[in-house]
Amino acid sequence: MSDHHAPALPIANRTVFFVSDGTGITAEAFGHSVITQFDLKFKQVRLPFIDDIEKAEDAVRRINEAFELTGNRPIVFSTLVKPDLASVIFKSKGLHMDLIQTFVAPLEEELGIKSTHTVGRSHNIADTEEYKNRIEAINFSLAHDDGQSNKNLSLADVILVGVSRSGKTPTTLYLAMQYGIKAANYPLIPDDFERGKLPSALPEFKGKIFGLSIAPERLSEIRNERRPGSKYASLENCRYEVNEAEAMMKREGIRWLSSTAKSIEEIATTILQEVKPDSRL
Amino acid sequence: MSDHHAPALPIANRTVFFVSDGTGITAEAFGHSVITQFDLKFKQVRLPFIDDIEKAEDAVRRINEAFELTGNRPIVFSTLVKPDLASVIFKSKGLHMDLIQTFVAPLEEELGIKSTHTVGRSHNIADTEEYKNRIEAINFSLAHDDGQSNKNLSLADVILVGVSRSGKTPTTLYLAMQYGIKAANYPLIPDDFERGKLPSALPEFKGKIFGLSIAPERLSEIRNERRPGSKYASLENCRYEVNEAEAMMKREGIRWLSSTAKSIEEIATTILQEVKPDSRL
Repeated sequence: MSDHHAPALPIANRTVFFVSDGTGITAEAFGHSVITQFDLKFKQVRLPFIDDIEKAEDAVRRINEAFELTGNRPIVFSTLVKPDLASVIFKSKGLHMDLIQTFVAPLEEELGIKSTHTVGRSHNIADTEEYKNRIEAINFSLAHDDGQSNKNLSLADVILVGVSRSGKTPTTLYLAMQYGIKAANYPLIPDDFERGKLPSALPEFKGKIFGLSIAPERLSEIRNERRPGSKYASLENCRYEVNEAEAMMKREGIRWLSSTAKSIEEIATTILQEVKPDSRL
Repeated sequence: MSDHHAPALPIANRTVFFVSDGTGITAEAFGHSVITQFDLKFKQVRLPFIDDIEKAEDAVRRINEAFELTGNRPIVFSTLVKPDLASVIFKSKGLHMDLIQTFVAPLEEELGIKSTHTVGRSHNIADTEEYKNRIEAINFSLAHDDGQSNKNLSLADVILVGVSRSGKTPTTLYLAMQYGIKAANYPLIPDDFERGKLPSALPEFKGKIFGLSIAPERLSEIRNERRPGSKYASLENCRYEVNEAEAMMKREGIRWLSSTAKSIEEIATTILQEVKPDSRL
């Protein structure tokens, strides 16, 4: 989790392509997790919306050009569902990593039925309930950012608490955007620590509260970018707030994690496991 | 793009597992795009953070339980980088779709080097420049939502324009969250149409403006959820605003797309292709 001081990787004179009939987001995310297993830096090119023969032939030209330019076979991760488009891409001079064909064939055998070769179904979320849920959840999270509103907190799936700048806002937006989860967030501030109590709107919702904490050193760094030299950003004050917030969460029996060394995705996944707001989706 | 009236799929008495040493987001996204090739509805279970032998053995127990419960082999998509963890999972009674091993081996041969078997490197973004960029971009997008601020528009990578409720906010947040792109958004309102001009803050940034339009019928539906029966939401007014906005974008030479039948991901990918704000990332 902490190779941010890792030396720069040697550059491979080789291009990696992510070819998709949709956005290519899945092909890229997956291909990226494969190539990061090698200590080499690759030039990476996403080719989305390859959904007819002409575009596929154009993609082949680009792959072959990269071969001629570098003298090395490009690596091609593709998620083309339609066999006729996939077979055009197979003619390129790249090394083919076809995600769909590799796994669909054994599944057809296991399930005893044929696949439908339907493009982009997993992304077909416009006009559906799921799409509406996401937009609604984003609006909810924006309206309930930073304790702005106590209205409709009962409708929240999750309520994040933590000191200012502990990562609450990006996490609530991610939960809304990716999972359609209505996530409110509520800051814990010095007033709350002096009173020694959770903000008064919260106790009745304890079952869906989740806390974020953060290392005081990191918090001070982040706050100093916004308000350099302020008391708010001082290490001393950050230590005080973090200690108080953690003590309060322990006292109140609130589950929490430290966001310091975690990505937004990791924080969101942990919250999903702990609070299980998706169990009713 | 329009099977939202598709009949409910028959339910397969079979569980699909997504097993990962990280969040499992990639395994799930990819596995989902494979299983949606079959006209069956599966029970789906994500098992994230499987990063030691004990957790792997626990995952095996859950997979085997699903086998006993259903009488059908579960399907297991896994992205376990460490061979010792992967080999524990392989002992389960599931049908194994190992994304890493399947593609890493041929790549090792092609590249002539061994993979590093390093866990979660592609998600290792905490503490890095990339992570900071994303958080900064989210803050920028929030501060520049709905034309709230003209300050620092010169720092924006993209400025989205369009009528109210055309999908600008979710798109800017997605661009920020996924790509660290600073995206502002600016509404086009009846005042602008009467003046026949873009909002005065915008013309100097025309190179990075991108427009969203939407079918008037859909817009009216969306607006009616917020303000039922209002003039704002009426089909007549929505037709007027959409026509005027599209005419203005054509006149001003602004690239645009219709968000009506598109997912947030598809809109964002198209913007990346057109405006190329990531070329300097």
